[in-house]
Amino acid sequence: MRLKTGETVDDLQRNGLRIIQDKKRFRFGMDAVLLSEFAKAGPGDRVLDIGTGTGIIPILMSARTPAEHFTALEIQSESADMAGRSVTMNGLDDRIRVIRGDIREADRLFAAASFDVITCNPPYMTGGSGLINDAGPLAAARHEILCSFEDIAGAAARLLKSGGHFYLIHRPLRLAEIMTSLVSHRLEPKRIRFVYPFIDHEPNMVLFDCVQGGRSQVRVEKPLIVYNSPGCYTDEILEIYGMKPAEGKQ
Amino acid sequence: MRLKTGETVDDLQRNGLRIIQDKKRFRFGMDAVLLSEFAKAGPGDRVLDIGTGTGIIPILMSARTPAEHFTALEIQSESADMAGRSVTMNGLDDRIRVIRGDIREADRLFAAASFDVITCNPPYMTGGSGLINDAGPLAAARHEILCSFEDIAGAAARLLKSGGHFYLIHRPLRLAEIMTSLVSHRLEPKRIRFVYPFIDHEPNMVLFDCVQGGRSQVRVEKPLIVYNSPGCYTDEILEIYGMKPAEGKQ
Repeated sequence: MRLKTGETVDDLQRNGLRIIQDKKRFRFGMDAVLLSEFAKAGPGDRVLDIGTGTGIIPILMSARTPAEHFTALEIQSESADMAGRSVTMNGLDDRIRVIRGDIREADRLFAAASFDVITCNPPYMTGGSGLINDAGPLAAARHEILCSFEDIAGAAARLLKSGGHFYLIHRPLRLAEIMTSLVSHRLEPKRIRFVYPFIDHEPNMVLFDCVQGGRSQVRVEKPLIVYNSPGCYTDEILEIYGMKPAEGKQ
Repeated sequence: MRLKTGETVDDLQRNGLRIIQDKKRFRFGMDAVLLSEFAKAGPGDRVLDIGTGTGIIPILMSARTPAEHFTALEIQSESADMAGRSVTMNGLDDRIRVIRGDIREADRLFAAASFDVITCNPPYMTGGSGLINDAGPLAAARHEILCSFEDIAGAAARLLKSGGHFYLIHRPLRLAEIMTSLVSHRLEPKRIRFVYPFIDHEPNMVLFDCVQGGRSQVRVEKPLIVYNSPGCYTDEILEIYGMKPAEGKQ
C-alpha cells in the first residue's frame, strides 16, 4: 500500500483492521468509535455513512455487524481517496464502496428509500460559530461549512426506507435544535445515550438512534461514562475499544 | 387547623413547613421536590405553579427562594381547598395564593406576560395511555385527562414575560415530543438534567429550564443520581431533602 506524504497507518485493534490517516487532516476520534458501536445493522442491510472522512465508521462496522454493504459518502476528494485506499488495504472492496459526492445532491446520487441504515458523525459547530482557523479540510469536518444539519437530516429521511434507522452523534449543546430538526423530518428519536467524560461532569456527546416514521417514544439509556479517573477508562469504554479490562479491575 | 377525614399533616423537614395530604388522593413525590430545587426565582419575581395539587412546589419554593409571590393554580376543587389550608397552616397567605381554575382558560384568569417564572409538574401519561383505574383525582394527576402538554406549554408561553423561565419535570420517554412542543412555543430549553435512579440505570425523570424567546443552546447538566445502593440516597438527594449526609459518609 503506497502512502502519501504525511500519512500514517494506524491499527484499529479489531480484527486486524488498519486505517490511513493524515497528520494534518481530521483524524478520527472517540465519537466515531462510539457511534460505530452504538449503530446496529443486520444481515442483508445496506448502510450509508454520510461524511465518512477516513472511512472509520463503515470500516469498524464491517467488523461489528453482518451488514451486507456499506456506501461511504465523502465530499472532499483527498479524504475520499484516502478512505478508498483504507478499504482496499483491509480487503473490504466487496463490502464498502467510497463515493466522492455532496449530500446536498443526494437525490442525484442515490434512489429514494434505498438504505436500511444511515450513520453520520457530522460537523458539530454551526457555520458561523467557534474559531475557524482556515477553510481547509479540518474546518469542514468541524463546522457546517459544506452542509447544515438540516441538509443531512433531510437527505437521511429521503434515503432511508420506512422503519430504517438513522444513527448520529452530536453535541448536547445543540440537543433542542437537532431533535426539532429530526422530528420535523419524521426521523423519530427512539434511543438516546449521553456520553459523560466523568460521572460528575456534564455530557459532551450524545448518541441518537432515530427511526424513519417511528412513533414518538424515546428510551434514554443509562449514562455512558468515559473515565473512572483522569487517564483511566471505564470498563465499558475498554470493551468498546476492544481492550479487555485489566485483571482484578472491577 | 381542621383536617378532613383521610387527611394527614406531613413534615417537610424544611423551615418547619408542613403539608396536608389525603391518603386517597395524589400525594407529592420526589419529582415535586426535585423540581422545587431545580427551579430558580429571584427577589421581586412573581411565580405561577400550574396544576399545584397539594401546593407542594410553591410551599417548598417559598423557603428556598426570595420570590415575591406565588400563584398556585389547581383545577380540582378538593385539591385547591387542601392546598389553601396548607398555605394558611404555614402562615404563607401573604406569599402564596391558591386559585381554583383551568389552565385552558388561562387567558381569562391572568394577564399575558404577567409572570417571571412558571413551574409545572404535569401529568406524565397521555390521555389514552397506561392503565386508568378511575376518572378521579389520582387519574387526572397522572394522565392528560384535563389538559394536554400542548395546553400547558401554550399557556406558559403566553403568561411568561420575555426572558422568563419555565421549569418542568417529565418522563424521558416523552423527550422528543416535549422538546418539540416547547420549541414550537418559543420556550427554548436552556438547561436539562436527567435523573437516574442508579448510575447504571436508565433515567426515569428529566428536568427542564426553558427561557421564553431564548436562543437554541442547551446545557445538559451532570447526572442527578438518586441512590448509591437500594434504599441508600446519594449525598445530593439528602441535601435536596434537607437531610445532611451521615457523619463519616463520603
